Parts: sequence; structure tokens; C-alpha cells
Amino acid sequence: MSRRSIDAARLLGRISALGDIGRDGDGRLVRLAASDTEKLGRDQFVAWIRDAGLELAVDRIGNIFGIWKPDDVTDGAPLLLGSHIDTVIGAGIYDGCYGTLSGLEVIETLKTEGLAPSRPVVVAAFTNEEGVRYAPDMMGSLVYAGGLDIDTALAAVGTDGTILGRELERIGYAGDYPPGFLKPYAYVELHIEQGPILEREGIPVGAVEDLQGISWQRVTITGDANHAGTTPISMRRDAGHAAARVVTFLRDRAKSSNTPTVATVGCMSFEPNAINVIPSRATFTVDLRDPDEERLREEEAALADFLESLSAEEHVGVSVERLARFEPVKFDEGIVTLIERAARDRGLACRRMTSGAGHDAQMIARIAPAAMIFVPSIGGISHNTKEYTADEDLVAGANILLDVVRELATEGTPA
Amino acid sequence: MSRRSIDAARLLGRISALGDIGRDGDGRLVRLAASDTEKLGRDQFVAWIRDAGLELAVDRIGNIFGIWKPDDVTDGAPLLLGSHIDTVIGAGIYDGCYGTLSGLEVIETLKTEGLAPSRPVVVAAFTNEEGVRYAPDMMGSLVYAGGLDIDTALAAVGTDGTILGRELERIGYAGDYPPGFLKPYAYVELHIEQGPILEREGIPVGAVEDLQGISWQRVTITGDANHAGTTPISMRRDAGHAAARVVTFLRDRAKSSNTPTVATVGCMSFEPNAINVIPSRATFTVDLRDPDEERLREEEAALADFLESLSAEEHVGVSVERLARFEPVKFDEGIVTLIERAARDRGLACRRMTSGAGHDAQMIARIAPAAMIFVPSIGGISHNTKEYTADEDLVAGANILLDVVRELATEGTPA
Repeated sequence: MSRRSIDAARLLGRISALGDIGRDGDGRLVRLAASDTEKLGRDQFVAWIRDAGLELAVDRIGNIFGIWKPDDVTDGAPLLLGSHIDTVIGAGIYDGCYGTLSGLEVIETLKTEGLAPSRPVVVAAFTNEEGVRYAPDMMGSLVYAGGLDIDTALAAVGTDGTILGRELERIGYAGDYPPGFLKPYAYVELHIEQGPILEREGIPVGAVEDLQGISWQRVTITGDANHAGTTPISMRRDAGHAAARVVTFLRDRAKSSNTPTVATVGCMSFEPNAINVIPSRATFTVDLRDPDEERLREEEAALADFLESLSAEEHVGVSVERLARFEPVKFDEGIVTLIERAARDRGLACRRMTSGAGHDAQMIARIAPAAMIFVPSIGGISHNTKEYTADEDLVAGANILLDVVRELATEGTPA
Repeated sequence: MSRRSIDAARLLGRISALGDIGRDGDGRLVRLAASDTEKLGRDQFVAWIRDAGLELAVDRIGNIFGIWKPDDVTDGAPLLLGSHIDTVIGAGIYDGCYGTLSGLEVIETLKTEGLAPSRPVVVAAFTNEEGVRYAPDMMGSLVYAGGLDIDTALAAVGTDGTILGRELERIGYAGDYPPGFLKPYAYVELHIEQGPILEREGIPVGAVEDLQGISWQRVTITGDANHAGTTPISMRRDAGHAAARVVTFLRDRAKSSNTPTVATVGCMSFEPNAINVIPSRATFTVDLRDPDEERLREEEAALADFLESLSAEEHVGVSVERLARFEPVKFDEGIVTLIERAARDRGLACRRMTSGAGHDAQMIARIAPAAMIFVPSIGGISHNTKEYTADEDLVAGANILLDVVRELATEGTPA
């Protein structure tokens, strides 16, 4: 079988070139959504879309689309590929960019080989996936899928006090197309794993069959600020100690279970935060994730029960604020099977896996069959300048995407 | 027996008047050492010293002395009374000021009643007891007792970037006397308890026989920042979780022992402190106190052992920085007995107790027999606008001081 592969040098060169755009004075990569540096990244992506002879479209939330629509397609609903090109502060060069540029690469390759698709193939860069500057994250794909009103999204106020809609206008990416103007036939997103599993197991390709549900809560515990020297242990209402008990409870519970549940306390602050004062207030976040909705609810309930008993035992006040909640997402079995088959055909080991992170794919899965392809992240490191995936793995992943797209673009149904 | 008492109205009036000096825009009492507002407090105290006909002296570290030295005293070494008039941010009106103004009140009362002391009686307001603006705390009395070089102390840089020596000059309280210019015969300090014990037990007078040793350490735990969603629990090096284990260890240990040991984690911070990132660093303080030096060392050793095993179990780095260390102080048994007798003679219940907080008395105890008298703090609250001691208790404490001073000022030896 004469099977084309993607142009590895072109893909790797573009990943590297895009990674050079938006460096700050310390050399850190910072392309926050709708910022001046992100505009430069968008301009580069748009230039490549035009170079590839694709039709450009920008919707009202700033999502960028490169559309390959041969005149003789029989089905109007496009096969959508994509990811995002905004970054966190001090980002690596792969997160989002790899999937976006691979989508473009795959389309160019298929154009060149003269494929006659049954439907348009489109690459998208979704706005504000990271959510660093504006909340919520995955905003562009969420709006696209109809999960968030466009006007509400455009009115989002940034951590720097800016308004997203005005920033999009300012940088020239407030488009005219209504979000959702292309109803996808299917969606495939290629991404670095951002976790350690593929590297640890020595497997180059992950066929992502589901995505963890996420529960974010902020817990505030209130006690009494009192003198650290003069207040006997038995008379204390120590909010800091109570918070520490929650952290160890969550860890002990996750560690002793056989489930893939993960629990993380990432933010913590004490008040008055003085060395010789018993903390009167401790505020912390709880990030719970599980690919099974029922189990995620059980974990939330177990935390709530623990907080209730803690409040009684430690004589502290406890309040909980829900910050975010996404149900687990099941990806499309047909596409996952296609990914496995493509890996097998190229002689690459592949495993089914769960995405621990959130991705645009979970939003588009609301309106179309979707799945993801993962490649290994060295050390599981992401959102960090040390983020790294070997060139060989990047190329292999893009070729798997190529093969899956060739199937989906020409077949009658997505499995 | 015709025994005079102090002028309750005068004392209470002065406590109230001094408490009105140094209010910020929100009504909070803020008289940080050597600040503009503390200058106003100093000026008022100096005015009262002059009103009382006492000799004024200010030493190089800014300690203020009101000296009653009748011409016919037989012993040059003075009986020293005192405390401090600097405050924390958002202070109550009693901490320090009560003891300072009671010392002045007692001298005025004894002068008025025509006592002929064997030695001078002096009231002191020591500079920078609180240590909020300049470190270390209890600085004026420490310098006075020879525990800290005067030039080093004057060069202290404040949290606001100021230099203590220059600030003392600026506010007119850089005196000429060398610290320690008066070698005390004995020292007595009256203070609010700042803890809950006297109120809880319904006892109006505490005869303070010792003062807890204090060990302050800053612990830094380092792990790996990783994605909260994609990193299995078994692969985490979570600095925040490790820090929480230290907090619960300290509490469990203190709670299960029969000793008066107290352990407090007052400060805590996580890095990067992001909801979806496993903490790579946790920094926190440990405040350990015990009236027994050997036991305090055991507690320090137990913490060190725990941190070592924690480092191995959790695969985290641990570093410890010693911030402060004071050995426990034993006060003078003779003066403590005098305090007990004075309480008994006035029909007041009295208990021996340990000071949980640091006080100027612990520094002066290095160079002279010293002890303290405590009165109840409602709810044990201090360093807080809610700090409160009933007028009746304030007056009773000052009368105990009066009786003790009458004895010590006229006797040949301090018991």
C-alpha cells in the first residue's frame, strides 16, 4: 500500500516557529488569550492557512477556521480537527499548538496527495482554551458547542480588568461568523498527554476513549485567631489544622482506593498568616476528577461528609463554594477504534486511555462524535517550559491523525 | 492596717487616653515602634512622667525611663518596673500599656503616701517589644540586658525599609544614655495574660513563675509541580500534602501528650498555588513552646525525625531554617512568693502560672531578679481590638504591683 505520511520537517518547523512567538523578557512563552502576543501567534497561523490554500473564517468568539472544501464534496458537514494556540504563562511549545498545526499539516498532506473527500475538512484554533486570562477555560469550543452564550462570553472580564470582546476587536479577531456556523460531522483532536502514563509504559499512541469529570470547589474554614503561646491546644479552634486534615483525608482516600480518582489541593492560604497566631481562616481549593460520573459524585459526597464531621470535631465553621463542574465525557467508540487500527497499521503500540485534563474535544463532543489521540509527554510535564515530546512521537501522532482523517473524510459514517 | 491603694480613676483614665493615640482611618490602634503615631504615645507618657515629678531619661535604643530617686536612698541599684507602649497593627489598649502605666501609677502612689524607699524606683517603656516593624521583638529590653549590640539594633531595617536608628532620631527619641545605664536591683512587670487560663478558672491574679521557651522554624518542602488531572496519585511528589502531614503530626503529638507543649503552624503558602497544579513547594512556620528546655529540645528533635521520615516516604525535599530560639526563663522565686502573699493579703485568689508569650521581663531576667504579675484577658484574646480586661481586674493587678513594689523598694534583698 502506498501510504503518504505528513511532512515531518514542515510540521516540526512550524511548531518551533510558533513556539518562538510571544516570549517575554525572561524568555518565557506567554500567549494569553486575545493578548498582543497571541495576536502574533494568530497572524502566523492565519498566514499558514492562506499558504495552504484554505478558506479562512473567524467567528464572533475569535475561533479561527481553515476550511478545505473541494467543489465536489457530497456532504456539507465538515470533519473538524483542531485544538488551541493560546498558552499559559511560562508554557511549553506543544500544548494545543501541536494539535492545531497537525490538523493543518494533515489537510495539506491530503490536498497534496489528491484525496477526494466526501466532506470538507476543517482545522480550528479555539479561543481561550487555557482560561488563564478569562474564565471559563475551553471557552471558544464551549461557545461553539452552544454551552455558553456568545454575549456572556464576550463580556468576560480578565484578570487584568480587560473585556474579552473588546480585546478581540482590538487585535482584529472579532469575526462575523456565528459560533457553531459549521456543524461538524466528527471531531478529532491530537494532543500531548500532559501526564506520565504513555512514557512510563513506553507506548507512543493513546486512543483517548473518555475524559475525566472535574469537580472544583473552594473550601473556607473559620476558627479563632489566638495567641500561639498562650492558648492551650484543647482550647483552640485552628482553621489551619482543620484544613490540613482535609488534605490528608483526600490523599488517604484516593490512595487506598482502586479507582482512578485523583484529588488535589492546589491552592492554600491562611489568615492572618502570622507565625505566632493560630489561623482564624484557611481557604483552599479541591480538584476532584474521575472518568465515572457516579464515582465522582461519591467522592464529592465523601468530602461533604468529612467536612461536616470536621466542623463538629474541631469546632470550626466550614463553607464550600462550587467553582466548576464538568461531567465525564465518553468519546466516540467508532473513532477510538479507527485510532487503534491506524496505530496497528503503522506498527505502533497503542493503548486506550482517559484524559485527565480538559480539552476542546470535550466541548465539541456535545455536538458531534469526537475523540482524541495522545502522544507521550516526557516526565508527564506540561504547563511548564520543560514540557517536551520527542520529534519521533510528534510525527507518529500526526501520521495517526492523517490516517484517521483519511478514513473519516471519505467514509459515509464515522464508524 | 492602713494600706493605700492606687488611684484607680487616674490609671484607667490614662490607659484609655493612651489607647486613643495612634488610631488609623479605620479606628484601628497602630503604634508601631518608632513611628509617628508611637512618637505621640511616647510624648504622652513623657508628659505624665514629668507631671509625676520624675526624672526623665532616654537611652540610645529609645527606652524611656521615669526615675524616682529620693535624695536619701541608700542603694543605688533601682527597682525597675515597666513594659512597652508600642503596639501591633489593630491592637488592643492593654498589651504593654497597662504594665507601663501601672508602674508609673505605683510610683506616684508611693510618692504621695510618703514612702521612703531604700533605692530608686524606676518605670520603663521599652522600645519595640512587638517586633512588628523591626526584628527581633523585645528589642529594647534585649539591648538593655546586653543581649544585642546597640549598633546592630539601631541598624535594623524595618518592614517598610526604614532604619530604626534614623527613625528614633527623627521622632526625637534617640537618647544619650547607654543601654544598661541603670543596673536594676530587681524587675517586676504587670501584664494582661493574653491567654484564657485566669478567666476560665475565675482567678484574678497570676504569679508568673516562668516563661515558655520558644522555638521558631520555617520549613520548606519541595516536590514536583504537575498536572492535577493527569498525574496518578502514586506518581505524585506533592509538597502541599507533605506539609499537611506535618501540621497534623504536630497537633496529634501535642494533643496526645500530658505536657504543656504547644505547637502552631501559623503561616502557610503553596507554590505555584494554582487549583489544577500539584504544589511543588510548601513553606510554613512552626512555633513550638514549652516551659521546660529539655522537653522543648525533645519536641524539636521529634519534628526533625518526622521531617526526615516524611522526606523518604513522600519523596520530597525538606529544608529547615531556624528563625528564633529562646530558652525558657525561670523567674525569681522570692518575687513570685511576694506576689502570692500580696494577693492573699488583699483577699484575691492567685495561681502560679507560665507565661505563654514573650515579654520584656524575660530579657531583664538576664541581669536582675525578675517576675511578672498577670491579670485575666477575656476570652484569652490579645493582639486584637477585642482585647479586654475588666476595670476591676486592672485595678486589682495594679494594687498587687503596688504592694510588691512597697516591699522590694524598702527591703534589703528581693527575698
